[in-house]
Amino acid sequence: MLSNIRVVLINTFHPGNIGAAARAMKNMGLTNLYLVEPREFPSDEADARAAGAKDLLENATLVNSLEEAIADCQLVIGTSARTKRTFDLPLLNARKGAERIVAESKQGKVALVFGRETMGLHNDELQQCNLHIYIPANPDYPVLNVSQAIQLLCYEVYVAAEEKTYTDIEEEYPRQKEMGLFYNHLEKVLRTTEFIIPQHEGKVLDKLRRFFNRSRPERTELNMLRGILTSIEETVEKLKK
Amino acid sequence: MLSNIRVVLINTFHPGNIGAAARAMKNMGLTNLYLVEPREFPSDEADARAAGAKDLLENATLVNSLEEAIADCQLVIGTSARTKRTFDLPLLNARKGAERIVAESKQGKVALVFGRETMGLHNDELQQCNLHIYIPANPDYPVLNVSQAIQLLCYEVYVAAEEKTYTDIEEEYPRQKEMGLFYNHLEKVLRTTEFIIPQHEGKVLDKLRRFFNRSRPERTELNMLRGILTSIEETVEKLKK
Repeated sequence: MLSNIRVVLINTFHPGNIGAAARAMKNMGLTNLYLVEPREFPSDEADARAAGAKDLLENATLVNSLEEAIADCQLVIGTSARTKRTFDLPLLNARKGAERIVAESKQGKVALVFGRETMGLHNDELQQCNLHIYIPANPDYPVLNVSQAIQLLCYEVYVAAEEKTYTDIEEEYPRQKEMGLFYNHLEKVLRTTEFIIPQHEGKVLDKLRRFFNRSRPERTELNMLRGILTSIEETVEKLKK
Repeated sequence: MLSNIRVVLINTFHPGNIGAAARAMKNMGLTNLYLVEPREFPSDEADARAAGAKDLLENATLVNSLEEAIADCQLVIGTSARTKRTFDLPLLNARKGAERIVAESKQGKVALVFGRETMGLHNDELQQCNLHIYIPANPDYPVLNVSQAIQLLCYEVYVAAEEKTYTDIEEEYPRQKEMGLFYNHLEKVLRTTEFIIPQHEGKVLDKLRRFFNRSRPERTELNMLRGILTSIEETVEKLKK
């Protein structure tokens, strides 16, 4: 699915942003980068910022126009600040847009188009899109760096596409019986230290049980806590002699 | 709410990343930037990359240690690759983590901690966290540029705050400073009871710190635990007389 999705960068001014975009894409499992008339490419700065994603730069497709970059796509998505005019195209936020991208990428090619650093997409470019996506942002300062915008959208696409379920690592937890023995031991020590006194038992034990049940000590941790209780008892015994 | 959230950057190598981080934060309505021993700051490159977020750089707080940066925080979150060891702290993905951040920021200060470009957070830094967040990513190339990771998490925080789908958190949590006092107290008592002996200090304190950081005692629970420690000390003192 992700191999059907491409990122198209138009007239990028700073080559560093191209490199950062490549890294952001690869981090999220995307590989197809199209560059429409970048100011400077290839570039050392792009390579440096790409880090482990230089292969995306090497395989990038250079074209002369947006038309060329999207010719074989069935869905073209423009990124836009929320306030900008949308020509009455559907405007989705990044999350909803990503769901749509993933859904359509199962059947055909999808292009995510990003504009210039200073002025985004021109009107004639916005009009070539099927829908627009905006990134929710601070209304007082909503314009993201282009590589950051790419990172966010690719991330939303990756999360939408992720179907794997992860199983948690199994810690070894004590049985309830062992927890019971721990609580008995704890109570005995707290009576010795007079933290619990018979006249005012209060809710101390309930509260401690709540805390330790919530904490879910692993078996080795429980053994350590038992060891601490024993060390307190032995100290008291020794002093009593 | 967002004003209770800070971003902490540790030992940032490239000043450009600090600038990009500031812009990413401001785009998402966050303003509090803490810098722990950056290699170069202030810096022209940071200013350039910050664009319209230079005010965040001017108001950034420079500190010498992570401890200083998080002293008044009730929740400290480390960012970590999913594969990295987490010391069995809770590990949430960015979205779930953001919901938690927004919920807790209603009552206290929250720190989002980001490590070095090359090696992330050191183990002793990861252990100072209450929970870890990972960003879902391509398993073959999962490490994001630090400013991109900041962009993603701040975005998730912004979206979570915007949606206000969070559930209120009722408990009052202690500050990290109070946790530090508790650990000192615990260590003192364990030396008294000779659970810790100078010749074989082992990893006892690390393990206990890990357990209690994971457990996140509420303030009343921490007070109770401190009370228990005091009762042990008083018992020992009385017997010594």
